[in-house]
Order: sequence, then structure tokens, then C-alpha cells
Amino acid sequence: MMLTDPSVKYRPFVAVDLPDRQWPSQRIESPPIWCSVDMRDGNQALIDPMDMERKRRFFSMLVELGFKQIEVGFPSASQIDFDYVRELIEQDLVPDDVTIQVLTQARPHLIERTFEALQGAKNAIVHVYNATDPMFRRVVFNVDKPECIKIATDATAQIRDLMAARPETHWTFQYSPELFTSTEMDFAVEIVEAVMATYGATAEKPMIVNLPATVEVATPNNYADQIEWFCRNVNHRDRLIVSVHPHNDRGTGVAAAELAVMAGADRVEGTLFGNGERTGNVDIVTLAMNLYTQGVHPGLDFSNITPIMREVEYCNQLPVHPRHPYVGDLVFTAFSGSHQDAIKKGMSERRNHPEAVWDVPYLPIDPLDVGRSYEAVIRVNSQSGKGGVSYLLEEEHGIELPRRLSIEFSHVVQDVAERTGKEITSQMIFQAFSDEYLEQTSPLALINHRLSSEADSPKVTLEAAIDQDGQRHTIAGAGNGPLAAFIKALAAHGVDAEIIDYHEHSRGQGSDAEAVAYVEVRLGEDAVFGVGIDESITSASMKAVISAVNRHRSTQAPAANVTAASLA
Amino acid sequence: MMLTDPSVKYRPFVAVDLPDRQWPSQRIESPPIWCSVDMRDGNQALIDPMDMERKRRFFSMLVELGFKQIEVGFPSASQIDFDYVRELIEQDLVPDDVTIQVLTQARPHLIERTFEALQGAKNAIVHVYNATDPMFRRVVFNVDKPECIKIATDATAQIRDLMAARPETHWTFQYSPELFTSTEMDFAVEIVEAVMATYGATAEKPMIVNLPATVEVATPNNYADQIEWFCRNVNHRDRLIVSVHPHNDRGTGVAAAELAVMAGADRVEGTLFGNGERTGNVDIVTLAMNLYTQGVHPGLDFSNITPIMREVEYCNQLPVHPRHPYVGDLVFTAFSGSHQDAIKKGMSERRNHPEAVWDVPYLPIDPLDVGRSYEAVIRVNSQSGKGGVSYLLEEEHGIELPRRLSIEFSHVVQDVAERTGKEITSQMIFQAFSDEYLEQTSPLALINHRLSSEADSPKVTLEAAIDQDGQRHTIAGAGNGPLAAFIKALAAHGVDAEIIDYHEHSRGQGSDAEAVAYVEVRLGEDAVFGVGIDESITSASMKAVISAVNRHRSTQAPAANVTAASLA
Repeated sequence: MMLTDPSVKYRPFVAVDLPDRQWPSQRIESPPIWCSVDMRDGNQALIDPMDMERKRRFFSMLVELGFKQIEVGFPSASQIDFDYVRELIEQDLVPDDVTIQVLTQARPHLIERTFEALQGAKNAIVHVYNATDPMFRRVVFNVDKPECIKIATDATAQIRDLMAARPETHWTFQYSPELFTSTEMDFAVEIVEAVMATYGATAEKPMIVNLPATVEVATPNNYADQIEWFCRNVNHRDRLIVSVHPHNDRGTGVAAAELAVMAGADRVEGTLFGNGERTGNVDIVTLAMNLYTQGVHPGLDFSNITPIMREVEYCNQLPVHPRHPYVGDLVFTAFSGSHQDAIKKGMSERRNHPEAVWDVPYLPIDPLDVGRSYEAVIRVNSQSGKGGVSYLLEEEHGIELPRRLSIEFSHVVQDVAERTGKEITSQMIFQAFSDEYLEQTSPLALINHRLSSEADSPKVTLEAAIDQDGQRHTIAGAGNGPLAAFIKALAAHGVDAEIIDYHEHSRGQGSDAEAVAYVEVRLGEDAVFGVGIDESITSASMKAVISAVNRHRSTQAPAANVTAASLA
Repeated sequence: MMLTDPSVKYRPFVAVDLPDRQWPSQRIESPPIWCSVDMRDGNQALIDPMDMERKRRFFSMLVELGFKQIEVGFPSASQIDFDYVRELIEQDLVPDDVTIQVLTQARPHLIERTFEALQGAKNAIVHVYNATDPMFRRVVFNVDKPECIKIATDATAQIRDLMAARPETHWTFQYSPELFTSTEMDFAVEIVEAVMATYGATAEKPMIVNLPATVEVATPNNYADQIEWFCRNVNHRDRLIVSVHPHNDRGTGVAAAELAVMAGADRVEGTLFGNGERTGNVDIVTLAMNLYTQGVHPGLDFSNITPIMREVEYCNQLPVHPRHPYVGDLVFTAFSGSHQDAIKKGMSERRNHPEAVWDVPYLPIDPLDVGRSYEAVIRVNSQSGKGGVSYLLEEEHGIELPRRLSIEFSHVVQDVAERTGKEITSQMIFQAFSDEYLEQTSPLALINHRLSSEADSPKVTLEAAIDQDGQRHTIAGAGNGPLAAFIKALAAHGVDAEIIDYHEHSRGQGSDAEAVAYVEVRLGEDAVFGVGIDESITSASMKAVISAVNRHRSTQAPAANVTAASLA
């Protein structure tokens, strides 16, 4: 084993002493309060944080999904967050039943700035934190326990007073002892009680205490033990809304949230599909749908989950994995014959008893409930952007489809699969590709062409011989390059085509090398793809244009109508 | 809410009654027996199952990682699996301390066929299963409980006898009551005890009973309750090696495995990075590294985790998510300034006390332990195949880097980031791209070119004017297309370049459209990338070749040596 012996470098997590824990016998019978932290914790972990347009789209989506608490940013730390909070308030974009939340460090000028950002808000949560873990106290901040508490209570007092001075806003106060899970439990209770006393929390005006697993450090039962221990030991539990904020460093963030709610947490902070620092925050979509499959409505709407995934992918610029629960491209697909057979029997039984409880083999949820369908017959999945079809064409045949073309072509393959009812091999995929794009040589075909250019001019002149329904024509044009010249030549021949997109790459090496060209061409009101392969990069691109023109004719009109007249 | 009310369609999981459960107070102090099911459960869930080459690579990797039990296939159901098992045995590819495992249904002719596949094996586990869940019994197989037991015991008797007749192999027997988690617990115990009796399991010759969460149906504490209940209620627990096989439908497969081991399981079946049917099997890498960070050596070697990820991605043709614990491209990256600051202080403290237990802010594991480094300064991550750099270039600047070039260029960006210590904006990335590839116009530059071809010949003739260190030269060549002709012309001028790879695409539309060409060129012993942009697709490709030649000269030799003589 090359992994070094961990017994000296790492220590086991020291569990809370709670032998009479009650949470393992609990069941979650109603959803927690959800708070999305996509726009703050999620956003700060992005390679490229969201711009204003993405922020606007994300916030609208969260509201539509049913979130009532949304952490929208860290306005004292980021000008764009500040500006975005101002826009939300000044343009009155926050529904009355939605509360925006902002994060601030426990520092006076940052708290001031936070309240500037919130000026005029209808409903707002001010969320302040400081690190309470012993290593942070010692190494990062060099404070002892009383000093650590003072940081929290000073900030709380300032926030309390600023809130009181701005009665036009309905305020909620939230405090996080950061790194709660690696903080001594009795100290966590001590600092929270000090904050509660300073703020003046009451049962009528409770505050939120958020107990984050800032870094996941132990099996998820330990987090539940800590939450239960905290809830049982803190004074005035009824003055607190206990919130959890799990991260996923050990791959158990979802479990940690679920067990913590069983242990008494009222509220969960997380993100859609688990974006967030490092391994991410807990995934609220999975938590919500896990509740749903137990008969508990989560109060969030994921009934059309695929567009939500695409929107999150757009805003975060990160993919959702094909095996992500409830949404991944592969999670409703069965590949094994025995699985498919069992599913068929279960679905047939269900058709006979549509009122029965859902109990279909290998499907923990009805795919229709999240706007998906059951995709068992076909192994290659039409949903996947760069899925199996594209992968196989590239790996096995050296064909690198541009993205939009790969989406179009996956439908072609799906048609083949549905027609034949068979598994689709890589060879069948290539054959379908060839039939659809490369063999489109009627009504037009390129016979040959001649290029010429002068050194002093960027213009290329092209003369090409084409076959059209058995008749030979010579067409000619000039442009800033051979492809532009060919488009001009076609136009002079009555075929108005405009290049929307063009890709080309080599396939093979050395003397076998050839070029594969892909074009997306506007023909009338349609955008049509074409593909050409040739030893010459220019011939390949011209063939691609002809492929698009021919494909357009063949879908537009029955064969009898495809005449020279209709083209020229 | 558009999600329909789930209270009628779905029912809550019915928990085992185990108020005195012991597992929540347990801690895992030694690793379970690991069994990789990548080559069976994982493989059958792939869009394109592994071919023989991929199977060979995967098996070798598993052996190198330290797996001692490897489920290699389902030979009675698949000819390629059968052939692969034969190859392993006949070519003596299985180390003496590694046991191969094969799966079979409980049907006589399939069991016969399974033993044919295993003929001559040194060590083998025969793994037989049947579904025990009440819905499967009723809907899928139409059997009552005694008939369900008889299927299992008949298969067991046949396997027992076939094993006895082949004493040259060291056999282990494994039985799975499939869908264990949705089976009545007392019936699960009943069928396992019947199988044990038929097989003749003893403490000296134990059998493996594998209790799968074939579909994950409840919070992970329920699986632990079931495992503990089973272990406490089955007769002759000492004659069993209790194995778990969690799936991940609710996103809690890792937690389920950990809690199940705390509850008494001896063995875990899973896959690398969690490939498998639907949402996947439990991820053994995460389980192993979770143990490691608690000071327990997992007995598997993930000390150089990135190449393992790449190899699994190659074999499975599926990505590992950038936030996957311990391995994802982003999991050792901190984006927030306060996180980076805390990490710096923690690392500095650690340098002063290198013997101390690992305790660095926001890093649950030392990245060096898995062959990674700490990548905090730079927001854009050099590891990510199509990561932030490529994404931004494409979205903001219309530059679609080919994959290998994107890897090369990310290092260029990283250098800039490290030199400036600053966040890298999309504009800085484009500037770096332009400096590195587009502005490479010395010693060679293309002034203009003239193309000609004849209609009857595929050959293109090219004459180009180039500037070399201020002097104008005319070069000429012919080939099957303008790029080939340009390569010939360069060769005649003394620059031997061979095109390894070529990509080109359009950028913008209409009158602003231009072509971006990327080439990878072999120059001497080096492979060098070059990029060109021009309105003409041919000029762009020629400029790309010149960019590669110039970049090669500038890295090869100090500026003073770059003379006409050294090139020609």
C-alpha cells in the first residue's frame, strides 16, 4: 500500500456521548423550512460566479420552485452582490411571501454595509457568523473562548440595534457558530445562549441558529447526535429555529441532513443538485424528492425536473452527473434484460390497478412525477448532451459532433432504436450517421471544383461542377475564402444558403488523414445541418453544405417534387 | 405546487422494530472486506459495456489497488463475460491472493454454464441470487414463500454438488436475497437459514450472505437497523460473512454502507466512484478515504487518485463529477478569500508542527495523500478537462479549444495566475490565449497565398509569400487540399511539419464570421499546438501551422538563435 499509515496523521472523530439518542426511531412526517443558499454558498464556489443575468434567472427559478427563504448574497464582501440586493429591493422583485437572506461577517463596518444593502427590504434575514472551532480560535483568529463569544455578541447587539432603527422591514436574525461540528458541544451551546440573550429572542420572536457542518468530518449519525444533544441541552429551545447546513466532504451530506431533521432540526440550508464549496452543499432536490417518495409533499415543485437541471447547469456552468438521483440522464434507464422484464410486469400490473401505491421494480419513483419518461428500451439516451451516441462516434469512428448536431442526431438514433427495438451498437450508430448525413447526394452532388486566388487579394474564386438530378452544371463564385465562395456560387445558382455554424477537424493521421466538416446552414426559414468528409479541408466543407441542402429538400418535399426547378 | 400529492401514491417505509439498536454507538475501527462489482453491476449499467481491452485494463487496475475479491462478470448471461472469465483463468491472470466472483441466476442451466466458465480457477466465489421481495414474488415470478425458498435451495444444492465435483478450485459460496431491504425481515432470515442448511455452512467454511439494497428505499439508518436485526436474529451468525450491497437511489449509499458496517456487516460490494445501475452502487473510493481520514487504513491504495479517475472514466465512458469527494477537480479548491486565508494560516501552523495530527481549515484530508496539490490561489482549475478556462473562452469569446489544447492552455493560464497572484478574468484569459497562440508571428509570418486547382484532379497547388525574419520568401507545394499543399510547401522550405490533429470552426455569423483553426503539428520530436484566425478557412489553417512552428522555435532556442539558417 502506497497510502501512508493514517493512524498518526488522522484521528477518529470524537462522538458526543448520547446513548439514549431518540432520532433513530423518528420518521420525517413534514418538510423542514427550506433555505436555498445557491446564490451565496453555491455562487462563491463557482469557477465563474454568476453574472447579473444569471442571478436574475436563478432567483426567479427559486421563487417559482416554491422557496420562501433565499440567501441572495454576501453584499458587504462583493459589489455585485450588493448591487444585486439593491436591484431586488428597488425594483420590487421579491414576492411578499419570500424572505431574502444575506450573510455577513461579525465585523462592524461589514454589518453597517449589510444594512445599507437591505435598506427598504420587506422581509430580510441577517445572517452573521463567526468560527467557534478550537483550531480556528487558536490558529486563525488567536482568540480565547470569552473573546470568541464577545465577537458574536458584539455583532448581535449591533444588528439588533440596526434592526430596531429600521422598523419598515420585517427582520429575522440568524447566527451560525461556523464549524459547529468540530466545536466543543458545550461551547456551542454557551455561545448560542449568549447570542440569544443579547438579541432578546423570545418564543414569539425566535431567532434562527444555524449549525453548519462547514466541513463534513464524521459519519452522518454523529451530526444527528450533535443536533439532538444541542436541542436537548440549549436553554429556551422554543426561542430558536434550529437550522442545519451540511456539506458533503464524505459523500453523506444528504444523509446528514435527513438524520439531523429526525434529530430535531427545523430548517435546512442547501442548494439545487448540491453545488457549493469543494464537494458541495447538501442537495435540496434529493432531500425533497426523498420526502416525496415517502408520501410527504416537500412543498417545492420539481414536477418538471429536466429544465431545472439545464437551467442550473447554465447558471452554475457545472454539469449535473448522469447518475444524480431523480434527475441524471441515466437514472430512469434500465440496461439489464431482467430489470427491463421486471419493470414491464410491474408497469402492466400498475395499469390494472392505477389507484394502488406505487410499487414498480427498480423504480423508486414514477418518472412521470418529475416530468421524465421510462427509457428502458434504448441503451443510448437521447437526453444526454454529450451522451453515448456522441461518445461512441468520437471514440470508435473519429467523428466529433458539434453539440447541437449531437442533439439532433441522438433523435435519429432513437428512431432507429425504436423501429428495430434492438440494442444500438457503435457500428449501427455510424451507419445511421452515414445514411443521414454523408449519403445525401441527391438532388445535388459535387463533382469537382477549381480554386484560384491572387496573392494581392483576400478573394478566392471558385468554379465547381455539380450534378443536379443527373444534369451537370457549372457554378462559380468568389468570397473571402473557399467556403464563402462556394456559398456565393450556390446563390448564383438559386440556392440561398447562409452559414450559421461551421466546424471541421481531422480524422486519422498521416496518409489516411481526412477532414470532417459540419455546417449548420440557414435555408429559407430552416436551420439544417450537413456533414462532409474529404481528404481536402475545402472539399469537405463544400460537401457539408451540399449535405445540408439535400437534407433540407428531402424533408421539405416528397421525392417527386424535387426537381431542378424547385431548386434553381 | 404542480407536484401531485404523494400521500396516496407513495407510502412511508415501514421500519424494523429495534428500539435497542446498538449501531449508533459503534465506530468503524478496521476496514470491511471490499468486493469490487465494477465489472458486473457497474458494467451492465454502462451505455456501452466494456470491451475486452477495457475489461483487461480495469481488472489490472483493481488488482493494483489492492482488491482481493472482484466480481468479474455474469458469464451465463453474456458471451463476452464468459470469454473474459476463460481468458483470466487460461492465461493465469489472477494473482493467487485474489478471488474472482461471478454472478448467476438460480436456474439449473445457467448454473451449469457458470461452472463451465470457472473450470480450472484457483479461487472463485459463485454468487447466486433470487428476488425475495413480496411484490416480485407476486407480480414478477408468481411464487409463494415456500416456492421462493425452493428456488434458492435447489440452486444452492446444485452449486454445492458442482463445487464438490471440482476440488481443484478453492470455492466460496455467496447467496443474495435480492431486494433484501424491501423483503419482510423474518422471511429474509428464513430463506437465508434454509440456504445455509442446504449448503452446509460451518464456522470453518462460512458462506457469504449478501443483503442488497437493490433499490434504496429509506433513510440509511433503516438499512443499519435491518442489518443489525438480521445479524441478531439469524441462527449461526458465525457461519456467515455478512455482506452489503447498497445502491444510491436516495443519494445516501455511502452513509448506508457506513452505518451497515457499524451494524455488523463484514463486507461491502461497491464500485469505483459509484458507477452502477441507475444512480449507481456505493462508491468504494469514498468509503475507503472516509476511513482513512479517521485514522483507519482502508487496505486499498488511492494514493494517486487522479490517474485512477481518468482510467475509470476511460473504461466506463462516464465522467466523475468535479465535486466528487476526494477526487473531483474542484474539491481541493477554495474560492473564498476568507477560506484561502484560513488555509494559509493552517498550513503555516502545520509547517511548524509537521508531526501533529492533520487539522487544516476546510481540508478534511491532506491533498498530497491522494497525489493532489492545494489549488487555492487560482480560481480556474488546471485539472479540469473542459474546465473554467475552456468554458469562458467558448462562452465569452467563441473559441472552442480541442481537448488536448485546453489542457495545455490551462497551464498557461495557471502561470499567469501564479505570476500575478490575481483572479483571472475572462478578458485576461483571452489575452493570454492571444499572446500565446495568435501573436506568434516571428520568425515566420504568412503574407498572402494563391491557390489553384484543376477540376479533373484532386490536387491543390499553393503558392505562398512568407516573411522570415524580415525577409520575403515564396514557397510552393501541392497536395490533396490546401492544408496538405501548405505542409508540402513548408517542407520544400526546410520546415518539416506533420499534421497530427486539426480542428476548425466558425466564430460569429454573417459578415463578421471568421474561422478559427487549431492544429497539432509534429516538429522533430515535439508535438506543438498552433492556432490561426482568418475570414478564410484555408488562411486560418495555414496561420495555425505557422503559429505552431513559431511557438516551437521560441521554446526551443533563445531569441538570438532563431535565424533563417536554423529554420531552413
